[in-house]
Amino acid sequence: MAHLDPLLNDLVIANRILAHEEVVDAYGHVSVRHPDRPDRFFLARSLAPELVTHDDIVEFTLDGQPVGQESRALYLERFIHGGIFEARPNVMAVVHAHAEDILPFGIVSATPLRPVIHSGSFLGAHVPIWDIADKFGDTNLLVTNIEQARDLAKCLAGWNVVLMRGHGFAAAARSLIEVVRMAVFLPRNARALLKAHQLGGQIKYLSQGEIDARNRGYGPYSTETWRAWEYWANKAGVGNLVTRPDGTKT
Amino acid sequence: MAHLDPLLNDLVIANRILAHEEVVDAYGHVSVRHPDRPDRFFLARSLAPELVTHDDIVEFTLDGQPVGQESRALYLERFIHGGIFEARPNVMAVVHAHAEDILPFGIVSATPLRPVIHSGSFLGAHVPIWDIADKFGDTNLLVTNIEQARDLAKCLAGWNVVLMRGHGFAAAARSLIEVVRMAVFLPRNARALLKAHQLGGQIKYLSQGEIDARNRGYGPYSTETWRAWEYWANKAGVGNLVTRPDGTKT
Amino acid sequence: MAHLDPLLNDLVIANRILAHEEVVDAYGHVSVRHPDRPDRFFLARSLAPELVTHDDIVEFTLDGQPVGQESRALYLERFIHGGIFEARPNVMAVVHAHAEDILPFGIVSATPLRPVIHSGSFLGAHVPIWDIADKFGDTNLLVTNIEQARDLAKCLAGWNVVLMRGHGFAAAARSLIEVVRMAVFLPRNARALLKAHQLGGQIKYLSQGEIDARNRGYGPYSTETWRAWEYWANKAGVGNLVTRPDGTKT
Amino acid sequence: MAHLDPLLNDLVIANRILAHEEVVDAYGHVSVRHPDRPDRFFLARSLAPELVTHDDIVEFTLDGQPVGQESRALYLERFIHGGIFEARPNVMAVVHAHAEDILPFGIVSATPLRPVIHSGSFLGAHVPIWDIADKFGDTNLLVTNIEQARDLAKCLAGWNVVLMRGHGFAAAARSLIEVVRMAVFLPRNARALLKAHQLGGQIKYLSQGEIDARNRGYGPYSTETWRAWEYWANKAGVGNLVTRPDGTKT
Repeated sequence: MAHLDPLLNDLVIANRILAHEEVVDAYGHVSVRHPDRPDRFFLARSLAPELVTHDDIVEFTLDGQPVGQESRALYLERFIHGGIFEARPNVMAVVHAHAEDILPFGIVSATPLRPVIHSGSFLGAHVPIWDIADKFGDTNLLVTNIEQARDLAKCLAGWNVVLMRGHGFAAAARSLIEVVRMAVFLPRNARALLKAHQLGGQIKYLSQGEIDARNRGYGPYSTETWRAWEYWANKAGVGNLVTRPDGTKT
Repeated sequence: MAHLDPLLNDLVIANRILAHEEVVDAYGHVSVRHPDRPDRFFLARSLAPELVTHDDIVEFTLDGQPVGQESRALYLERFIHGGIFEARPNVMAVVHAHAEDILPFGIVSATPLRPVIHSGSFLGAHVPIWDIADKFGDTNLLVTNIEQARDLAKCLAGWNVVLMRGHGFAAAARSLIEVVRMAVFLPRNARALLKAHQLGGQIKYLSQGEIDARNRGYGPYSTETWRAWEYWANKAGVGNLVTRPDGTKT
Repeated sequence: MAHLDPLLNDLVIANRILAHEEVVDAYGHVSVRHPDRPDRFFLARSLAPELVTHDDIVEFTLDGQPVGQESRALYLERFIHGGIFEARPNVMAVVHAHAEDILPFGIVSATPLRPVIHSGSFLGAHVPIWDIADKFGDTNLLVTNIEQARDLAKCLAGWNVVLMRGHGFAAAARSLIEVVRMAVFLPRNARALLKAHQLGGQIKYLSQGEIDARNRGYGPYSTETWRAWEYWANKAGVGNLVTRPDGTKT
Repeated sequence: MAHLDPLLNDLVIANRILAHEEVVDAYGHVSVRHPDRPDRFFLARSLAPELVTHDDIVEFTLDGQPVGQESRALYLERFIHGGIFEARPNVMAVVHAHAEDILPFGIVSATPLRPVIHSGSFLGAHVPIWDIADKFGDTNLLVTNIEQARDLAKCLAGWNVVLMRGHGFAAAARSLIEVVRMAVFLPRNARALLKAHQLGGQIKYLSQGEIDARNRGYGPYSTETWRAWEYWANKAGVGNLVTRPDGTKT
């Protein structure tokens, strides 16, 4: 499976970037779908993302079971990834995290989380809030089985991000580089929106047309997207791991 | 007392984690009850927690007196620990600190500090506010004798955390690892709640059932709890000190 | 063009300071007008500012075209700089960035961004808000051609800073050292204003007379201005590059 | 003047602590009165406090003139120190700074800055706001002559801290160690108060009796005070410079 190395390498980078940008801490995780087997995905074993290396990555089926023999502890919430990959064939990468500044938007609903800055456009025009209590009553708030994960995926529907009440968010995208970008800009958009709300007056959200225009122009390996990926990897201390899609080092 | 070494080692780690996570600074302290002598506890001599080593740990009786000959300066507020250990036989570890983001909730009472995020569930459904002035009038706000500490413990009652007006908080738990976790997530829960309040609208607190469900599932050495302990210890530069309860290094 | 070396050296320092002070991250850029050819300016190739070195600097005409043969990727938004240099002959340096704390002031308009602290005086008495949608409808919010840049420059008019709705700001000044200073103090002034607004009551902005008095006393190489430039350069790790205008090292 | 070395050494430490704790940056300064000549004081030459060493310290008369021949640039606002030392014979140390989180309280006056946390008690029950415009009209907001400084000192009167509208604060105390402590806890008290205000409801300030009780118990070299001084010096990288009043190293 040497041909998977660049992808798994990118998954390590994604873990480190999300840790360094404080999207994840001891908790939170990022996964990528298997490029040849759409019914499988890769995710680290239970480990703080900033410590993840190539050897910590485990292959899972969409119901959250490890493909090989696996004696190491696994993330309790790995089902989130499987549930979303199952429901959304075009999604190639998923992040689940507790980034602090998005939490308030899942606790109250009067001010919806929507894009107010251009780098937040990839959230899309609507970010649904999933409350695990609606269907499952009093739980520990964690998504610990595939049934809960499927309900979460149903709430996410065709959107890019779903807030999980009192817990965090899940984000889905067409590539690792895109889902990392989304997860990094999500708290920034949330802070700008909270502060705009504090200043008072009518908030100018991005229009649907602007969101569409930005989506049309997006490319995972465009100069602009790549600049942030490299920059974040450098800051996270894994700049040396960065390899372009054509296999060249940057 | 070599059999106490793992526990005192954990107490050193707890000091360093609380310092690195900015729960304590020059002030604030963490203690653990003596496992064989429930009428005694361990706490550092007067020293900033980030500097505490094994040799700085002192054994105290519950009325705050050092057990052996002790010429070094001691924390003025060591009584807080004794008072809580005395009143609560099941409590094995106590933190007292001034973490900045919890202070506002002790100064005004209109918005009670309660769990709004899953990692805040261990605060419990209610966090009482103790005002030293209610019983002791105009003081320097410090808990400097056992009588004040007993009054504080009475206000804490069976809860896990008590806010101290204009001063800080005290937290009590069944183990060091749990009290550290509680103390780290307490300011985070406070920030999420303040920001939710700023966004406006009805706040969805964790339900009693959710708090109970999380309590039932909690284990001090579960994979998930351990992951954070190790992560925080690494970040605080004492990852090398971490030893599992069975004595193995991680 | 060895006589340009000190200026290009300062442009490198400016990039690093803006990165270290978190005015720019992967995005945002700073330019300086060519001292001998007012119809040209210098700006880095597409690169995160904290990585910019002398070799990354490219010479452009005011319509955003590189002067020499240039195969490296360029900033999409280089037109911002050309547009402002074209419209404002006295402007010698321009910054464009997304500094987080100014974003809210471009999203809502009820609380105008104006100087409330003395170091914010160089913003001037008015900071216009440019909404790209007003003239160009639904775009990706980026300024990607000279027509958009000219419209932005028209909104900036004779002011020093223009907010770009949902995107960031552009700042124009008489020298690199001044535009960097303005860009660093802009978010600080924004934070002080937001918090004053939160405290409630009548806000005391700087008066026009105070803004004028500060402008009269300003010199790019005064002891006070230089102190900050040196301090920021040291913090950004490029203190060794700092050279006084007379060519002496500091 | 070798007997002054411990004091000047402490002044260096004070500069570094204030820089590291982000009370000062490129701007702001701390002074100490000459112990043998109450009509003189020590203050660094114009330099960012984090760079100050023993050799940068200059002796001044109370009207802000250097005592010896001095060719190096001096702080424009050194008059603040002289004005306060002149008006307040018991004051031994002064800080002037722009710490960001106190700025809002000088811009609006609806919510007065007063102690809400025990470590803020040394601000005293009242913090006056001085607006340079009241007497001097439109200025650059800086205190650049002794007349302005005397007016500032008059507004400070017998209090410990005075806010300077749109600019910063000045703090006066009986010792260097006390004025540093005051300057570090001032922004913390300001943040706790702002957030309490945001939570809503009646704010419980420290009572006059509590402020008095804390003042009575204060000693510049008490175990508790010393613990913070040592801790801050260590964090600022000058722990090695710390010497106890009796000349022993810690």
